[in-house]
Amino acid sequence: MRRTVHPSGLRVLTEHMPGARSATVGLWVGVGSRDEQADRDDAPGSLGSTHFLEHLLFKGTPRRDAMRIATSFDRIGAENNALTAKEYTCYYAKVRDADLESAVEVLADMVTNSVIDPGEFETERGVILEELAMAADDLADVANERFFEAVLGEHPLGRPIGGSPDTIRGARRDDVMAHYRGRYDPSTLVVTAAGAVDHDRLVEQVLRALEEADEDRWSPVRDRAPVRRPVPTAAPSPGASPSSGAPRGAQTRLFRRESEQINLMIGTGGLPLGHPDRFAFGIMNAVLGGGMSSRLFQEIREKRGLAYTAYSFGASYSDGGVFGIYAGTGPDTAAEVVELAQAELRGIAEGGITEEEHERALGQIAGSSALALEDSDTRMGRLARAELGTGELLTLDASLERFAAVSAEDIRRVAALLADRPRTVVAVGDVERTGLRE
Amino acid sequence: MRRTVHPSGLRVLTEHMPGARSATVGLWVGVGSRDEQADRDDAPGSLGSTHFLEHLLFKGTPRRDAMRIATSFDRIGAENNALTAKEYTCYYAKVRDADLESAVEVLADMVTNSVIDPGEFETERGVILEELAMAADDLADVANERFFEAVLGEHPLGRPIGGSPDTIRGARRDDVMAHYRGRYDPSTLVVTAAGAVDHDRLVEQVLRALEEADEDRWSPVRDRAPVRRPVPTAAPSPGASPSSGAPRGAQTRLFRRESEQINLMIGTGGLPLGHPDRFAFGIMNAVLGGGMSSRLFQEIREKRGLAYTAYSFGASYSDGGVFGIYAGTGPDTAAEVVELAQAELRGIAEGGITEEEHERALGQIAGSSALALEDSDTRMGRLARAELGTGELLTLDASLERFAAVSAEDIRRVAALLADRPRTVVAVGDVERTGLRE
Repeated sequence: MRRTVHPSGLRVLTEHMPGARSATVGLWVGVGSRDEQADRDDAPGSLGSTHFLEHLLFKGTPRRDAMRIATSFDRIGAENNALTAKEYTCYYAKVRDADLESAVEVLADMVTNSVIDPGEFETERGVILEELAMAADDLADVANERFFEAVLGEHPLGRPIGGSPDTIRGARRDDVMAHYRGRYDPSTLVVTAAGAVDHDRLVEQVLRALEEADEDRWSPVRDRAPVRRPVPTAAPSPGASPSSGAPRGAQTRLFRRESEQINLMIGTGGLPLGHPDRFAFGIMNAVLGGGMSSRLFQEIREKRGLAYTAYSFGASYSDGGVFGIYAGTGPDTAAEVVELAQAELRGIAEGGITEEEHERALGQIAGSSALALEDSDTRMGRLARAELGTGELLTLDASLERFAAVSAEDIRRVAALLADRPRTVVAVGDVERTGLRE
Repeated sequence: MRRTVHPSGLRVLTEHMPGARSATVGLWVGVGSRDEQADRDDAPGSLGSTHFLEHLLFKGTPRRDAMRIATSFDRIGAENNALTAKEYTCYYAKVRDADLESAVEVLADMVTNSVIDPGEFETERGVILEELAMAADDLADVANERFFEAVLGEHPLGRPIGGSPDTIRGARRDDVMAHYRGRYDPSTLVVTAAGAVDHDRLVEQVLRALEEADEDRWSPVRDRAPVRRPVPTAAPSPGASPSSGAPRGAQTRLFRRESEQINLMIGTGGLPLGHPDRFAFGIMNAVLGGGMSSRLFQEIREKRGLAYTAYSFGASYSDGGVFGIYAGTGPDTAAEVVELAQAELRGIAEGGITEEEHERALGQIAGSSALALEDSDTRMGRLARAELGTGELLTLDASLERFAAVSAEDIRRVAALLADRPRTVVAVGDVERTGLRE
């Protein structure tokens, strides 16, 4: 792994993978939906503007119109896309080694020189409304959004990434433009690449592409001058501790939709990025709901046949987190599944895990991590998330050592920590038939 | 690529990938949902039995119970799953190189020695009913199933792979067992692997695992005797030509569901496997709806903002196929999107594609194929689909030569062939608001 920090603040990280014939490159901007201002009087429609902006960056620069951007990637068969998360935005492409330079050039042009044409803005509003409509029809997705809102309460991390149909209908080009101008600069940009990549050459390509940027805010790259910008102060997150603003008691939230299944989410505030218990949590989560042999899968699916899918997960952010269990089940069995899920978490909180489970989880983490790291896209993303998150990037071996150092008591304790926090249940579907009550 | 055919009929195909540290191995059985008997008097519930059986093979053998099978994969962090398609069933695992032998052993035990315990059968019935309920809540999935049924008419390829809640509630263990005993034997089994794999060693491992199989139908492996089995005669497919039993006129089928979006599928019978026009179709499909720069994406999403997703696809089977266009849009714009989609296909049928589009499509196919072939799972699947399908496996270069040999007139002609076939439209969602009529 190699890392270069340019005087302007721009960071470039690469990981060369011997034998790879392709590479994945991503331009990451350290800004996400949490950074939007919900209550700015002058920008009522700013929620969803980070994601709106991500779409607009595909719509053209002075050098390339939208069609030219699309053809630049299609003509080389690139796997090209972008994603907006709560704390970052990413534009990426996976390409054959010979196509890396051209991908970097187009991505850099998109990110630094977007025109945000007013006509394209209106057309894209329609596309985003369709994207939100598609998400609204996906009831597992709806359950997930409502669950994050319920667990994180009023915290900006609790908001849906894409905004709502109302905020998108109200979005103004000026707000999105202000977001773009105020947030996209050399200090927030992290370029990562993995696979068939040469670090020095990539740094050179990135600098050359950025030196050509039209907007003044990129001139520090050319001038080798540091960007001085106010660092946004993040609000304290309610997920980090049970006493910081999240819901104080157990809550059940029901959302009625025409459906066959009830989409259930059960959980609470989780661990923030870099939390010392994150390795213990990883093992606990594998045993609780991380595979076919996990307790949730065995209890809910294999023994009782109540669900096709049942798993647990953690999501971590700079100052908060979410822990959750998902299961899809019939209306008649939803209340039973909620009880079973909580009982399995309590079971680990009270009795810990077996030695066999402990050993199996370590093997599972070692094997699945090794497989994941064979993909250049996984490595590219890991570099960026570490750089934008805790700043700590462990090698696979160092990370496995940390997992191996976790004690059985650490695992029991992290389960107890989560089991003791106020419990949120979200159900989406034909909820009247479930017997669940708010 | 290496291929070994054992005297029993068992086939093993491998592709060694230099530098790979992991491998994907799959046990493929040349039997799918199309082979089920819809109208056997003695097995009214046999529809969905291929998929039911796939689930049951995870439930235990005399040597390994269900939990042991699950832990065998989880403890090494394998990416392990199975899939049932219309013409084959596959059980696979992606593992680190050192874990390949153990994965082969467990997969072989599952496939050859399943107990199909009556108690497990009942529990799994519940899991499959939940899987069907989950699919019924996914309206894009519903549109896809109804579209295949509508295009292929009464042909067995037109049926949903998983059966229906009714056939699953009516399924009997004896039917599934008969399916297992009648179809799983050395003549229908194809083992493929790619990545860090040594052909001779894999053949040895597979033979050793199969020689231990309990059931008589596997004894030809031990005895090196050919399996003589009746080859099922496939019904002629209506997809292969417009005059062989498929719907003779244009049809529109509407399915009302509570939803924000209308899930639209527009299309007709497509090309069967091995059709001489398949390379021309690949280029036509890339230009019509194969990427961000494709005509459908540009016209429906980029110019008009009517959809988040719009693409075209082909699905090919031994004696039939389907060609389709998918788009998700609002109820008010559904009729317009149906017209736009058809107009784009007609546009190519009448005017062909431009030289720039032709060249771009060739580049896209070359680039995306090269990227796909870096994954051992893609290569493993390609080997098996070729073996079970046409029997022809082209190298990437040979395949690109075939694409390069396609003329502009071939591309126009294949679009005209599809545009002239009777058009099927399926819409799922709040269809009353669309203005579409059956």
